[in-house]
Amino acid sequence: MGALEVLRTIHEKKIETERPIVIVDWTNEEGSRFAPAMLASGVWAGALDKDWAYNRTDINGKRFVDELERIGYKGTVPSKKWPVHAYYEYHIEQGPVLERERKIIGAPKGILCLHWYDIYLEGEANQVGPTPMEGRHDALCAASEMILKVNELPSRMGGNMVSTVGEIQNYPNSRNIIPDKVHFTVDIRSWDDDLALNAWEDVKKDFEEIARRRGCPIRMEETWRVAHSPFDEKLVQRVMDTADDLGYPALHMVSGAGHDASYMNQVAPTAMIFVPSIGGRSHVEIENTTWEDCEAGANVLLHTIIGSAMEV
Amino acid sequence: MGALEVLRTIHEKKIETERPIVIVDWTNEEGSRFAPAMLASGVWAGALDKDWAYNRTDINGKRFVDELERIGYKGTVPSKKWPVHAYYEYHIEQGPVLERERKIIGAPKGILCLHWYDIYLEGEANQVGPTPMEGRHDALCAASEMILKVNELPSRMGGNMVSTVGEIQNYPNSRNIIPDKVHFTVDIRSWDDDLALNAWEDVKKDFEEIARRRGCPIRMEETWRVAHSPFDEKLVQRVMDTADDLGYPALHMVSGAGHDASYMNQVAPTAMIFVPSIGGRSHVEIENTTWEDCEAGANVLLHTIIGSAMEV
Repeated sequence: MGALEVLRTIHEKKIETERPIVIVDWTNEEGSRFAPAMLASGVWAGALDKDWAYNRTDINGKRFVDELERIGYKGTVPSKKWPVHAYYEYHIEQGPVLERERKIIGAPKGILCLHWYDIYLEGEANQVGPTPMEGRHDALCAASEMILKVNELPSRMGGNMVSTVGEIQNYPNSRNIIPDKVHFTVDIRSWDDDLALNAWEDVKKDFEEIARRRGCPIRMEETWRVAHSPFDEKLVQRVMDTADDLGYPALHMVSGAGHDASYMNQVAPTAMIFVPSIGGRSHVEIENTTWEDCEAGANVLLHTIIGSAMEV
Repeated sequence: MGALEVLRTIHEKKIETERPIVIVDWTNEEGSRFAPAMLASGVWAGALDKDWAYNRTDINGKRFVDELERIGYKGTVPSKKWPVHAYYEYHIEQGPVLERERKIIGAPKGILCLHWYDIYLEGEANQVGPTPMEGRHDALCAASEMILKVNELPSRMGGNMVSTVGEIQNYPNSRNIIPDKVHFTVDIRSWDDDLALNAWEDVKKDFEEIARRRGCPIRMEETWRVAHSPFDEKLVQRVMDTADDLGYPALHMVSGAGHDASYMNQVAPTAMIFVPSIGGRSHVEIENTTWEDCEAGANVLLHTIIGSAMEV
């Protein structure tokens, strides 16, 4: 709602700008129902094909385009980029850094690279009681070793990255049958694309060794790679300066999460404004930000937008 | 079908026995839909309460008793034990031992103890990108360490047991969220009840240490314990001797899986007859036994039954 408040303030104060101001609420930023994330901004920026996006399906096989039509959200204006002078996106940090550093505004210099992998393991299912330990091919044990390797990867690579296994499916998932199929995901992020790639090459060797040792054939898919994305330096500095002018302690940082700003950054000068997440928590029900911090972020958004919109 | 063949043979050959022969096909031996396993034999033997069994529900909340009625399987004769002179159960081995030892008939001296545990871990969910590795509480990493401890347990305890994690649920199970809840199962079996208990005490300490170190509170439930169950020595010997008389190589062994014979063993002299599982595989679609081995087992069943039924 920060953006709407900004528009109302500009309207009430009768501020006249040199450039038009457009507010956008991108559809399907999370991608939780229709993967991938940032679907609409990707189409608008020309990074994703519109028909491909329309045909994304949810877990029940429903198509994105049909659901847009059903709820009356399929517009008539073509979703296609036009020249943009400056793009600002206001967001919660979704991490603990601002709170820890006692800052109110974060000005990310850009977004970390994002590499997604899908790992498929095969084992040999058997009733657990009569099957001796020797000669077992337990796909869940192989996956467990790999999950720990992913967890240790950042410290092994010397920091400056995060890597996580968030999702696992185990089959047949019965307490008295040795698991014969496991799928899990790997998420690697860094400001340094090469470090992230090297980390993957490194952990891939571990995976292969574990799979071989446990007799569990492995298949690895390189699902998605987005390079790290530095924002426009001038706009980032404007966020820092504006926070400073308004008396909000601000921090030059990075964004660990992807945002619509990632795609916008490909077609227009872009920056983001972060406000603290309480306890660093996000993507959980207790995700929260104080109203005071929300107001601070909205004020920074207002003044950065006006600053850019006043430029001839 | 081995048992029906046996009855037919006795009938066709006009064999007159001193004791009546009863064939039983116990309902719900696996317990896959209505847990626990061996529900009907447990009620008949008096180890489980009939009403409690009736009220077991499947994953859709349907009650066992209602489904029995629906398919016309709820009989009118009380399911209650009566004196039994000898009980024989014919089964596939569900393991690789007979095949490896090139035997056709297995005569288990009894069934391993069976201990089931349920482990619940709590972590802290967060968006993976903006959350540094330090300070994470990743419940799936904690579970992975524990799963490997369970896998190493038999060799640490000096063998003579198996231990397995077959089932895991991970929440929210999203590739970009740190897991904050994991449930997994532990299955421990041994001929030596004390060894199995000591193994649990041992691995429990590991679990507590891992949970503490990773800041993931743990809850452990001791779900089910069945002591090891030695069969009737005379009947087991009869199975060995009968196989010998018929020219089938036989092996004195143990049963790693639970069977209806476990409950029957509490109320009557009991023995089992095993035939080889091809490749040691069971509880999978390719589970199989050659027709020749099936016939061998049925012949042993026939002659052991006649042997016991001829006893005054």
